[in-house]
Amino acid sequence: MKILFIGDIVGSIGRDAVAKYLPRLKNKYAVDVVIANGENAAAGRGITRNIYNELLQMGIDIITMGNHTWDNKEIFDFIDDVDYLIRPANFSKDAPGRGVAQITKNDVTLSVINLHGRVFLPPHEDPFAMADELVAEAKKISPLVFVDFHAEATSEKIALGWHLDGKASVVVGTHTHVQTADSRIYPNGTAYITDVGMTGPYDEILGMTKESVIYKFQTNMPARFEVPKKGREVLSAFFVEVNDKTGKAMRQERIYINEDYPFKP
Amino acid sequence: MKILFIGDIVGSIGRDAVAKYLPRLKNKYAVDVVIANGENAAAGRGITRNIYNELLQMGIDIITMGNHTWDNKEIFDFIDDVDYLIRPANFSKDAPGRGVAQITKNDVTLSVINLHGRVFLPPHEDPFAMADELVAEAKKISPLVFVDFHAEATSEKIALGWHLDGKASVVVGTHTHVQTADSRIYPNGTAYITDVGMTGPYDEILGMTKESVIYKFQTNMPARFEVPKKGREVLSAFFVEVNDKTGKAMRQERIYINEDYPFKP
Amino acid sequence: MKILFIGDIVGSIGRDAVAKYLPRLKNKYAVDVVIANGENAAAGRGITRNIYNELLQMGIDIITMGNHTWDNKEIFDFIDDVDYLIRPANFSKDAPGRGVAQITKNDVTLSVINLHGRVFLPPHEDPFAMADELVAEAKKISPLVFVDFHAEATSEKIALGWHLDGKASVVVGTHTHVQTADSRIYPNGTAYITDVGMTGPYDEILGMTKESVIYKFQTNMPARFEVPKKGREVLSAFFVEVNDKTGKAMRQERIYINEDYPFKP
Amino acid sequence: MKILFIGDIVGSIGRDAVAKYLPRLKNKYAVDVVIANGENAAAGRGITRNIYNELLQMGIDIITMGNHTWDNKEIFDFIDDVDYLIRPANFSKDAPGRGVAQITKNDVTLSVINLHGRVFLPPHEDPFAMADELVAEAKKISPLVFVDFHAEATSEKIALGWHLDGKASVVVGTHTHVQTADSRIYPNGTAYITDVGMTGPYDEILGMTKESVIYKFQTNMPARFEVPKKGREVLSAFFVEVNDKTGKAMRQERIYINEDYPFKP
Ligand SMILES: [Fe+2]
Ligand SMILES: [Fe+2]
Ligand SMILES: [Fe+2]
Ligand SMILES: [Fe+2]
Ligand SMILES: [Fe+2]
Ligand SMILES: [Fe+2]
Ligand SMILES: [Fe+2]
Ligand SMILES: [Fe+2]
Repeated sequence: MKILFIGDIVGSIGRDAVAKYLPRLKNKYAVDVVIANGENAAAGRGITRNIYNELLQMGIDIITMGNHTWDNKEIFDFIDDVDYLIRPANFSKDAPGRGVAQITKNDVTLSVINLHGRVFLPPHEDPFAMADELVAEAKKISPLVFVDFHAEATSEKIALGWHLDGKASVVVGTHTHVQTADSRIYPNGTAYITDVGMTGPYDEILGMTKESVIYKFQTNMPARFEVPKKGREVLSAFFVEVNDKTGKAMRQERIYINEDYPFKP
Repeated sequence: MKILFIGDIVGSIGRDAVAKYLPRLKNKYAVDVVIANGENAAAGRGITRNIYNELLQMGIDIITMGNHTWDNKEIFDFIDDVDYLIRPANFSKDAPGRGVAQITKNDVTLSVINLHGRVFLPPHEDPFAMADELVAEAKKISPLVFVDFHAEATSEKIALGWHLDGKASVVVGTHTHVQTADSRIYPNGTAYITDVGMTGPYDEILGMTKESVIYKFQTNMPARFEVPKKGREVLSAFFVEVNDKTGKAMRQERIYINEDYPFKP
Repeated sequence: MKILFIGDIVGSIGRDAVAKYLPRLKNKYAVDVVIANGENAAAGRGITRNIYNELLQMGIDIITMGNHTWDNKEIFDFIDDVDYLIRPANFSKDAPGRGVAQITKNDVTLSVINLHGRVFLPPHEDPFAMADELVAEAKKISPLVFVDFHAEATSEKIALGWHLDGKASVVVGTHTHVQTADSRIYPNGTAYITDVGMTGPYDEILGMTKESVIYKFQTNMPARFEVPKKGREVLSAFFVEVNDKTGKAMRQERIYINEDYPFKP
Repeated sequence: MKILFIGDIVGSIGRDAVAKYLPRLKNKYAVDVVIANGENAAAGRGITRNIYNELLQMGIDIITMGNHTWDNKEIFDFIDDVDYLIRPANFSKDAPGRGVAQITKNDVTLSVINLHGRVFLPPHEDPFAMADELVAEAKKISPLVFVDFHAEATSEKIALGWHLDGKASVVVGTHTHVQTADSRIYPNGTAYITDVGMTGPYDEILGMTKESVIYKFQTNMPARFEVPKKGREVLSAFFVEVNDKTGKAMRQERIYINEDYPFKP
């Protein structure tokens, strides 16, 4: 199975970047399954039902989330009705939605697990223990398991990556909005990258207008962070080919597209 | 001027990686000046006088530091005696050492400034205000200014990068020990990368034995983090060519060397 | 001079408590000057011009603020026009308002300084250095100096208290909304209390409806924290008598009024 | 049952304060059971077997701990052998020791539960869920349940207090080392205080030499925090009388003893 994961889609520029490049990427890599993090899809803050539908129509199969899951309150109205939107599995037992989904393509089933980090972040349920539990459950369905670990600290993400080596097929980090260059396949067959990076405005700060973010750092005064609607885009993604029988990653490739690093057909 | 910056050198594996690859890199890129972050050079914790000397003998011109500056108490004995070791300039006015150094090669002078972030980190002096002040001072000496911003959060590093665009020649981030893939030259001529990454053990977590770090995350119990002395290495660096007259970056290249991404002569 | 300081006034219950007890307290203690922290006066979030006027009409002479200073945007319209509202002095140089005010009663002048802590809080300017500077300046006007240090950690507040012993007449902590029992006069004449506590709803959590705060802790889900308009009140205050010539504290008394600890005339 | 709880005993000054005042307090309040937090008993850092024995010989029945539980490595040798030392119950399942103990006096059994907060602290297991579980279990043994919640934030402690109102007999907070003045009995019969405060050096900062703590705040440089062996003492405690049949608190009293607030026989 050939899997493409697209990092945090931010606002309309991010959605437009997906519309523009996803067909070319699907073609180039003969992608079977597309997963994307959608926590910032609605103007940087959460996701709406319309945007969920829009992303699926573009060819995304499963959408993961993160700390911005509940930013747009509309999600409470539809998260329990839709099949391909998951939020971190280690959120509260009382939280709506769920943290695991399956997708089947060409008779091969992939489980997708979304988890949330705890370093510099709220004390969600233990992601390491939950990863053990959920990966083991997923393995009963098929050997192909994909984990999106939405976390801040490099230490926590690398630790989960090594911890799941040989258990999950792929472990990707999201949340910092900057792609890391450390993608690799660990010795026991797990493809890993510390952060896939984001898909949205290229000339701003994590997708937010840079003037307001700089002002915030300079003054510690309240600032309104906006996602611009115009400007150049960046698309950040990660491609992995997984063996359908063993669930082991066989090939990985970072994808980072913008005017400085243009798409190569 | 052709500048090579080597990210956080961790322990003996890191120093050995420098010894192994620096000559080849100097040759390949015709490097004029080598800067390296040495905050983890002594078994992961600070730096000693011997290691300082060793690194200079390997061909490093200036060493920058970070949150681990004072980990090895020996530094208090020599930091004020040596010329090419700087620590974050926005540390306390009462801290020994200094945060800026100059190096001249072929009649071209480069100022190197070390700064420390404050997001998820102690409340050092304002790095944005200090950057403005120190860059302006450095510009009186020569237009070539290099900044190592030792910080955790991607937002803070990108914000300083944009803030200094057109003012500094190069802004690199260090501290997360993972190289980012976002290196670029900003519109006004500043070369930038969110994190250069680290130089040390390749198969551990930020250079520390992975078993102990995973145990820590699983249990929140005390754990002793050790830097292993054996194992495969990674070298993370950043190359920038700067115009000697204007101080503008003209060319940038990420350097990431390990068995998965071998050195290409 | 007899000084009464009222801790964080929260919402209408807090303002009503001031209206109810301030006359009795002024009478009982023969108070000369009343200072109050007003950062939560407007429904828990900041202050408005009307509430500023209302508090002054009740007999408060100077209002201090804290991390909630800018919560109600109306403050930007009047903070630079009013004489008796100060915000933490170690906020950004670019912040409107100021951090010191003087009040004269019976020919005795008191300087009031507002400072903000940095432990578990944003990296404002160094409160220790700024305290040294502002207290020294205030001493040129008169020996009577009052400091409201709005901070979270007991360590930081006690440290500033000891640091200013013999320099300031009074150092009070605010922000945790719970009165501490450690009020005392330090050996060199500074009256000190780690936190004065808050003035507002008695049967809630820091003034916010308890159900929503408990739900937040149980689930880490978004919760809307409201300040109730009905319910029993608590008033937390600190009384200090200062020698007009030396500025030394001569007498201190914690004041904590609610149905469990009723006001004693 | 008449219960006396002594807040964080810090170093030899703290232990001496217990030796000096505990007999008088037991006499004055006709105390049945004495509980104490001992996380700082060994020179500020953890506890040793000798100090454990010493504290029991002084008349303490059960010792609770907190974030400093593992500071003195000796604890790993004896925690599983002793009957009256508990550590936070929401530590890792892999941690040695346990978080609940029972003590019987005059045929009345009291359960003591130790929990740890998570605000500004590591992400231990959820203290609210664990409190529900452990209190329910304890109720099967007897209606008398005492909870020491070792936590930093006032919000988290007050929230747990209200949450357990009517379920636990007593909920005390520890950790900030400063006694709060808000002790009360909640409407459903739970005695509560946000922080009992500490028992140790009176003229320092949280029990640590004040010069080093102030230096740390002024410079953010490494500092060695020592617990002095000489100086005036403070004892902080909380007394509660609980109904043996219902487990409801009937009477509560804060105890705060030092030269400014001398012991009253
Ligand atoms: Fe995120
Ligand atoms: Fe995101
Ligand atoms: Fe670092
Ligand atoms: Fe480092
Ligand atoms: Fe506050
Ligand atoms: Fe407040
Ligand atoms: Fe303690
Ligand atoms: Fe503690």
